[in-house]
Order: sequence, then structure tokens, then C-alpha cells
Amino acid sequence: MRSNWKQRLKATKKAIDRRGLLAAAGLTAACSSGTKPAAEEEMPSELGSAVSAYGERSKFETTKRLVPDLKRPQIGSTTTPLADTEGMITPASLHFERHHAGVPEIDPAKHTLLVHGLVERPTVFTLEDLKRLPSVSRIHFVECSGNSGREWKSPGAGDVQKGFGLASCSEWTGVPVKLLLEEVGRKAEGKWVLAEGADACRMFRSLPVEKVISDGIVVYAQNGEAIRPSQGYPLRLLVPGYEGNTNVKWLRQLKVVDQAYMAKDETSKYTDLMPDGKARMFTFVMDAKSVITTPSGGRKVGGPGFHEIRGLAWTGRGRIEKVEVSVDGGKTWKAAELQEPRLPMAFTRFRMAWEWDGQPVEIMSRATDESGYVQPSREELTAARGMNSNYHYNGIKAWRVKAGGEVESV
Amino acid sequence: MRSNWKQRLKATKKAIDRRGLLAAAGLTAACSSGTKPAAEEEMPSELGSAVSAYGERSKFETTKRLVPDLKRPQIGSTTTPLADTEGMITPASLHFERHHAGVPEIDPAKHTLLVHGLVERPTVFTLEDLKRLPSVSRIHFVECSGNSGREWKSPGAGDVQKGFGLASCSEWTGVPVKLLLEEVGRKAEGKWVLAEGADACRMFRSLPVEKVISDGIVVYAQNGEAIRPSQGYPLRLLVPGYEGNTNVKWLRQLKVVDQAYMAKDETSKYTDLMPDGKARMFTFVMDAKSVITTPSGGRKVGGPGFHEIRGLAWTGRGRIEKVEVSVDGGKTWKAAELQEPRLPMAFTRFRMAWEWDGQPVEIMSRATDESGYVQPSREELTAARGMNSNYHYNGIKAWRVKAGGEVESV
Repeated sequence: MRSNWKQRLKATKKAIDRRGLLAAAGLTAACSSGTKPAAEEEMPSELGSAVSAYGERSKFETTKRLVPDLKRPQIGSTTTPLADTEGMITPASLHFERHHAGVPEIDPAKHTLLVHGLVERPTVFTLEDLKRLPSVSRIHFVECSGNSGREWKSPGAGDVQKGFGLASCSEWTGVPVKLLLEEVGRKAEGKWVLAEGADACRMFRSLPVEKVISDGIVVYAQNGEAIRPSQGYPLRLLVPGYEGNTNVKWLRQLKVVDQAYMAKDETSKYTDLMPDGKARMFTFVMDAKSVITTPSGGRKVGGPGFHEIRGLAWTGRGRIEKVEVSVDGGKTWKAAELQEPRLPMAFTRFRMAWEWDGQPVEIMSRATDESGYVQPSREELTAARGMNSNYHYNGIKAWRVKAGGEVESV
Repeated sequence: MRSNWKQRLKATKKAIDRRGLLAAAGLTAACSSGTKPAAEEEMPSELGSAVSAYGERSKFETTKRLVPDLKRPQIGSTTTPLADTEGMITPASLHFERHHAGVPEIDPAKHTLLVHGLVERPTVFTLEDLKRLPSVSRIHFVECSGNSGREWKSPGAGDVQKGFGLASCSEWTGVPVKLLLEEVGRKAEGKWVLAEGADACRMFRSLPVEKVISDGIVVYAQNGEAIRPSQGYPLRLLVPGYEGNTNVKWLRQLKVVDQAYMAKDETSKYTDLMPDGKARMFTFVMDAKSVITTPSGGRKVGGPGFHEIRGLAWTGRGRIEKVEVSVDGGKTWKAAELQEPRLPMAFTRFRMAWEWDGQPVEIMSRATDESGYVQPSREELTAARGMNSNYHYNGIKAWRVKAGGEVESV
């Protein structure tokens, strides 16, 4: 795919100019003499900033989460700027938010996790207790089931941040739920686990015990440091591959129960209304999805010539197996390169060389996961699910590149 | 190793107390009634903080880089708090620093990379140019060759941050140097590459062209967002596995040359004085190393019973193959668990279950990499290298746990 990128690159490069030659000639001159070549005027010749205890980003970097105009800014969501993030790790500062009652301020010295219900030995764990226990680190995405929700009704609106930014990926560290349930002695009749947060509304969800045993983690660290308040400080439940709000933040209890609790957030919300008027419940798993992030809606392609198309793919069913990209409106597809390591239930970065001839085109991506599931077209998705859903939209997303390079949502 | 962790855990758990029972009984009470059980007084019943554009950490978190008392705070280093970081990713804010002339403030719109020397087509690349090119993302450690330098003379001093914190690990994204050199048409006689930074002293190093072709990346992103100023914003060279200062920050030029330049930082500095009075030069590769981070010097083990020993291992020669841990002063060794994925030239987190009986012990770790290289003891290292070096110390590190739980450097 990259075999002929060199020929195509020509459009992006500039022959060395006078300024470049001068700069080259001036190599180390500023260290050895007081004279500065004209071309180096903008280069520093004095000491820069000092070292610091906790680094900040450059003042030239203004990438941020999108904060919508909310009546109550405590209840709502912000989105990850996917067009401006690289690789598979989302910086903690840019991880999407979705809060049901704002971000509580929790003193970790006073916070505890109660594990009880259908267990032999109900137990309260302090943070200190949990940090002594066997731990794991895993890179996983978290995606709100409402991500891309606006695509159900108006796929033509928005950009990749607005439309797909309720998904982020971090390295999470904590204690496997399996160990905690073994420790408290889960009884055989305990088939579900209720996870409850310490936010003002005590957001809670019911989860099948098999899933939290196989994959669940009580997490205290994200990307190497303590989890951020907006991600559940000091503890969150991670249920990899499951819809976002099951990954309960500010986790204060796990209660083992015999059946689902039919919580508000699994009955009145987070269900999917089907064409026949019935609602799907407990649609936990996030299906395979992909989206091109560069170029994407609202951005501009910088002229004809060589470009790299980049995007992200993820699935709640394990690893991404394949991502195909079309640059002709879906007529033909070509396999993109997948960045290794491809980890289960983690973002997978895909890339494809592309020579744009300056003509209007539609570009799109289609993910296949290791279970064999193929990301559906919008038509396939709406044929199966109807138009009444708010959640779990994962149709193929197309962007239109116009003759001038402007990119818009299709 | 974890088979009998359950029995050992007993010391860390607390039987459920009155407070826990009340909290359990009060489940969701705060949402459905105005009365609050006494035990829930500290739990929020009002909306928390609002969503935000760029997240901050909790006010309870004060983990920071260690800023030494420097005459010129622009020239020096800060260290990553390894005792307080988890997993393999170091947050960008906590990545170690080592600056030779402070952190320059660079406007990315004006910054360019000149690639020239023994090439057919000398070329100036803007940031925009580079971001159009084929990219890769890789998780790699960077370690200053001076890391653990104080261990040569006084291994008994310091903690893991002071002694080992000049090492960090990030996901880096950028353009392979291989592509850039192909693009400019490197001539056959071009055997070395000079990499120069845009800091006030124009720090530069000579690098073998084979290495930068096989592994080198011109990096513009770290952990998903633009590289931080203290890590080279807007561009740094990444030479995975090579000593820190070859990963030139604020990269402004790559010059292909026929031989090494004998720069100040590869002659008067960054060489290793051997017992016979000769100095080793161009000792690029960082040898295999490991260190226990929990428990470690200056911290306290929270009483007898079950604990998880945790640490980090890394090598410039590929993957970490094995980490052994001794909890009896080096008499016996047991293989620790290694967190997957084990990536080449990246931090590998290791963990081992440990039941502490409350008696004084010495704990230590020993890494083996995929080349078969085994981390040496202090005695083996100093026998081979003498005592005149400042750089490339990678001897086995022991911590002493005293009867009261205090941990000190041995």
C-alpha cells in the first residue's frame, strides 16, 4: 500500500530554499559565536523555561473536549477531539465525560468499596486495601452507548468529535472483580452484580456476574496516574466492551444479587426501541465500529497529492480483525494497515495511503472484528433496528471531500 | 503464584462494620427520600462539578516530578514518581525531563525540519507536511543514560524516584525516519545522521544510520496529544532503546554525514570511563534493567500479610523475557508475572504475590531480555566497568524492609 508513496509525496514537499540553506550553514553557530544568521532570528539563543513538577502542554495547543451548551453543566457529556488525537491512548484530560449528577469531590482516605449481597463474607475495602491486592493493567476503550446517536436521525450533521467522540481509550489499572468475589465468597445463586456509584444520584446498573468475573476490574489508575475525578476518582468499575454507563464511576458498592434490578438506567433509559414497539434491554456489548478521523467533517484536505487516511476501530467482542477503506463512495474497498499491538476491546488505529486527485469523493471505513461481525451500512442497521433507537448506532460513516478540500458529513 | 493469595489476603480485609451495613441499607435512599442515614453524611447529595473542556486531576492527588534544587532551573532534570505510577504508560505531565538549555517556546506554524547532507534532495518539512506522511504509533521507554548514576557511588541513598526516575514510557506517534531518508535520497556514503535540536545550545548527537532507519521516528504526538514542550514540542527524534539524549528534542534538522561528529555531548559527556583509563564512546543501547517500585525506599509496608510486589523492567534490546524477584536477600529467586502485551523497548510491569511475616528482609529484582542478557549484580557490573562511570548503571537494586515496615535503599 505504501509502495508508491514516494512518488506521491512530491506534492507535499518543498525544495530547500534560501532560508533552509542559511539555517543549515548556521549549525551550532549560535552556541559558538555572538552573530546570528538572519534566518535564525526566530530561533532561541537564550535559556528556555525551567523544569517543573507537573508538565503542561504548549500554549499553542488548544485541542479540547467539546462542551455543549447545557442547562445544567453538571449533567451531560463532553466529547474527545478524535480528529486531533493520535495513536490509541486518549489523554486523561481529553477522555469523554458523561455525568448523571456531576463530578463528586471524594476524599480517597474516606472512600470505601462495599462488596456484599449473596456472599459469605460481606467486606468493606479501603483504597489502601485494594492497592495491596493482585492488580492488572489493561488498555481498553470506553464508549457511551449514546455515541453517534445523532446519526440515527441526521447523519449529515456534525464532525467526528461531535458524532463519535463519546469514545476514548486508556490504560486502566486495578483489581480484577473475580478476585474480590472469590474473597467475599460469592454464593452460587448470585447471578448478577449491582454496581453503584457515589455520585449524588447513586447511578447504578445490573451486570451479569459471568462478565464481571471474566473481564471486570475495579480501577484506581488511568494512563499511569490516579484516575481523574471525571472518570470516577478514586474508583471506577471497568467492564470492557460493555456500554459506557455500566463502567460505574465513583464506585462505592458491588452487591451480588439473584436477578437484574431493573434500575432506572436500564429500563427508562439505555434501552433500544425496536420497529415492533418492543424495547431491547441489557444491550451491553458495543458492536464493532470504525470511523475515519483524518480527514473528517469540518476539516480541510490540504490540496491534491499524497495523504494518509487515518481512523479508529473498536469492538466489544475482542480484537479488530480488519478495517476496509473506500475512497470512491463504497464502490471498492481496500484493507487498511492496522497498528499493532491490536488489543482486545481497545482502540485500533488504522491507516491507508491515499492520493487525492482533487476531485470530489466520498471516503468511509468498515470494521470486522474477530467474532466475524462486520460493521453494517446505515441501510442494514436501520432495516434491522428501525429508527426509534437512541443508542448503539454503529453504521458505516462516510465523509465527503469537496473539490476545494472541505470535508463534510454525509 | 497467586494460588494461595486468598488465604493471605485476610490481613488486609476488614469485617463489615456498622458503618458499612448502614451504607448498604441506605442504597439509593438519597435519591428517593430527603432523609440521610448518619453513615452517609459524607456522601454527596447535591450535584457535583460541571463537565469541562480539559480535565484536571483530583485536588487530593499531589504526585509530582522531583525538582532538585538547581542553580539554573533551566538546565537539569526532574524525575518520574515511579512509586506512584501504575501500568506501563507514564502520564505526559510526569515524564522525566532533562534539558541542556531550558525548554524553548516554539510556534509550530514556524517550525521546520531540515533533512539534508549526503542526500539527493535536501528538503524542508513543515509540521503540516510531516502530518500528511505515513505515520506509526509505538509504545517505547526513554531513559537518560545518567539514570541511577548515583548508584555507582552510594547505592544506599535515595528512593526509586530519585534513583530510577529518569525513565518514562509513552505512546509516540510520528513519521519513520526511514521514509524521510528515502524521500530525500540518502547517498550510500551517508553512514551517520546528525540530529540537532532547536534549543538555545543546539544540542546535537551523531547516530548510526542503520539504527535510525530501522527504529527512528520523528515524533509529533505523545500519549494521544501533541508532544509536550518539555518533551520536544513540536518535534522530537525517537531512537527507541538508545540513551535518552539521542532522542533529540525540538528537532530542527537531520543531517546525513559520513562519520560521527564528535559532538560535545558524545566526547566530553555521555562517555563511560573504564578501569584502564580509556573511555567508551557511543554506548547508545540501554541495557536491561528492573526495579521494584512497590514497596520501595522511603515508603512503608502496611503491616504483615499479603502484599503485591510491583515493579518495572525494560531493555534497549527488544522485549523483556523474564523478571525474577527475591524476597530473601538474593538467596532464592522466583519468576514474577509479566503484564502483557510485552512490547519491544517498552516498560514491562512485573508483579509477584508476597506474604510478609513482619521480619526484616531484602527484596530485589533481576531482568532478562530476549537477547539473553541478564541484569548484573552490582558486583558484576563494577567488576566489568570499574567505578569511574557516571552513566549506564543497571545493577540489581535491593530494598530493605525493616521490622516496622519502613523501606530503605540498600
